[in-house]
Amino acid sequence: MDTHNQRQHPAPVTVIGLGAMGSALAAAFIAAGHPTTVWNRTASRAAPLVAKGAAHPETVAEAVAASPLVIACLTTYEDTVEALGPAAAALKGRDLVTLNSGSPAGARRTAEWARGHGARFLGGAIKDVPPAVGGADTLLYYSGDATVFAAHEPVLRVLGGDTVYLGADPDLAALYEMAVGGTLLPALVGFFQGAAALQARGLEAASMVRFTERWLAMIASVLPVLAREIDSGDYSEPLSSVNVFVAGSAHDAELGKEAGLDVEWHRPFHELLERAVEAGYGTQSIAALTEILKEPRRAA
Amino acid sequence: MDTHNQRQHPAPVTVIGLGAMGSALAAAFIAAGHPTTVWNRTASRAAPLVAKGAAHPETVAEAVAASPLVIACLTTYEDTVEALGPAAAALKGRDLVTLNSGSPAGARRTAEWARGHGARFLGGAIKDVPPAVGGADTLLYYSGDATVFAAHEPVLRVLGGDTVYLGADPDLAALYEMAVGGTLLPALVGFFQGAAALQARGLEAASMVRFTERWLAMIASVLPVLAREIDSGDYSEPLSSVNVFVAGSAHDAELGKEAGLDVEWHRPFHELLERAVEAGYGTQSIAALTEILKEPRRAA
Repeated sequence: MDTHNQRQHPAPVTVIGLGAMGSALAAAFIAAGHPTTVWNRTASRAAPLVAKGAAHPETVAEAVAASPLVIACLTTYEDTVEALGPAAAALKGRDLVTLNSGSPAGARRTAEWARGHGARFLGGAIKDVPPAVGGADTLLYYSGDATVFAAHEPVLRVLGGDTVYLGADPDLAALYEMAVGGTLLPALVGFFQGAAALQARGLEAASMVRFTERWLAMIASVLPVLAREIDSGDYSEPLSSVNVFVAGSAHDAELGKEAGLDVEWHRPFHELLERAVEAGYGTQSIAALTEILKEPRRAA
Repeated sequence: MDTHNQRQHPAPVTVIGLGAMGSALAAAFIAAGHPTTVWNRTASRAAPLVAKGAAHPETVAEAVAASPLVIACLTTYEDTVEALGPAAAALKGRDLVTLNSGSPAGARRTAEWARGHGARFLGGAIKDVPPAVGGADTLLYYSGDATVFAAHEPVLRVLGGDTVYLGADPDLAALYEMAVGGTLLPALVGFFQGAAALQARGLEAASMVRFTERWLAMIASVLPVLAREIDSGDYSEPLSSVNVFVAGSAHDAELGKEAGLDVEWHRPFHELLERAVEAGYGTQSIAALTEILKEPRRAA
């Protein structure tokens, strides 16, 4: 399917799973003129998309049968396999693309399951929020069957301009999804704690937003340096040393007490820093924590 | 001191503490033509700055006496008071500006100590890395004596174009420093874990840098929404629910096992999510974790 053909005759697409993200995906396909079939366990979620022109058959098997390209946007791989279970026979000869969170192992299991039913598999992840779907900068990456990516790349680009193929292993996208996504919850909890500390002082969380945006941009700016240290294993010329973080962590308890906050969640970070100091990394780069994370402790 | 005068006769400045950041501050003042006096416990660190034209007296008291404006850039407030101890008498009538990490309580103690020795106090924080000192976008914020900020604002702007006065309380800058800075170590550890997971697969940490930069920009983009939820206490229309994060966290152990990583540091995050679900926030915004952080548990 070349781009020219694609523009004149947009290919049919099926979207399974209509949470906030799945609904945004389906809406983007509809807006781009693709004949779009949707399905969701809770049928009412389909109504806004049907109003925009989506087809909504009664069974998931009919939905899968409606398009050569089936995009599943459930919460996990387990949910994906469960939702598609009744449609397994209809998967034969179709291309299944998953866009969800989950472990590399989950991606491999799902790829095997899909191939077992005669479908080609591409695992994907969308690294943005639902309102960003369709944006020129919106990042999605995929891995698995290269022929699936090649066949559907113009369709997949409807979802975001920054669409990347990572390689043939079906679990690579899941690996990057977890590797890249691992900053999210910790960073958010850090932000929430800051917000709570400001509130304890009668100040608004909104007052720290601009500063935190700058701070996250600063963190982004040092990632190339940190990655170079990690890839080389040379932590000897630190921008920020482990010891600097040790000094900073001493104040957490004081802030917690003053603002009446639960700062127990800092404890593992303090322990990682301690282990890094014990391993001789005190004056070396904070990126040396990577080496500590590679040493699973025996269950206590 | 107006800007015009400032340009013609740059004011003398003293910088105490010549770590990576203190050295960058002093270098920026020298480059801007300010007569700059420096002091550090380990005198050898002054040599590169002396080569650029800085004065380097033998004692910290002489260094403090050399300029009406004294900027201390030690690691903590405790270090600041200790380093300036022998110069306490020389502080009388001078303006002391601190640029370091530490708790609001530490800032208040230092302000009191400085005022007790007849100095005016301004507490500050620089929200960037040493190489960014002097940049047009580089963010520094200050709080404390408004007359000190007004008197020295043009000098302080040499250190960064985004220079902000937060208010009269001497500990406000420290409060924002901890509130904003609280995302750093957790986000970095998330990145390091991702890097280790890629390495376990024979991939380079560098390969996730671009994706993580986009991801941090995504996190920054949702902060205004999260802050609004926190300030209003209304978590009922989530962009991302607590339950979505609960589903995601189930895969951490699997990734840890597969990549041979220590994922024990996730445990407090899982516990915060569990407590949020128990408190009825499952289908509400992840920002509701702020309310959970406000409930310190009794020591177990």
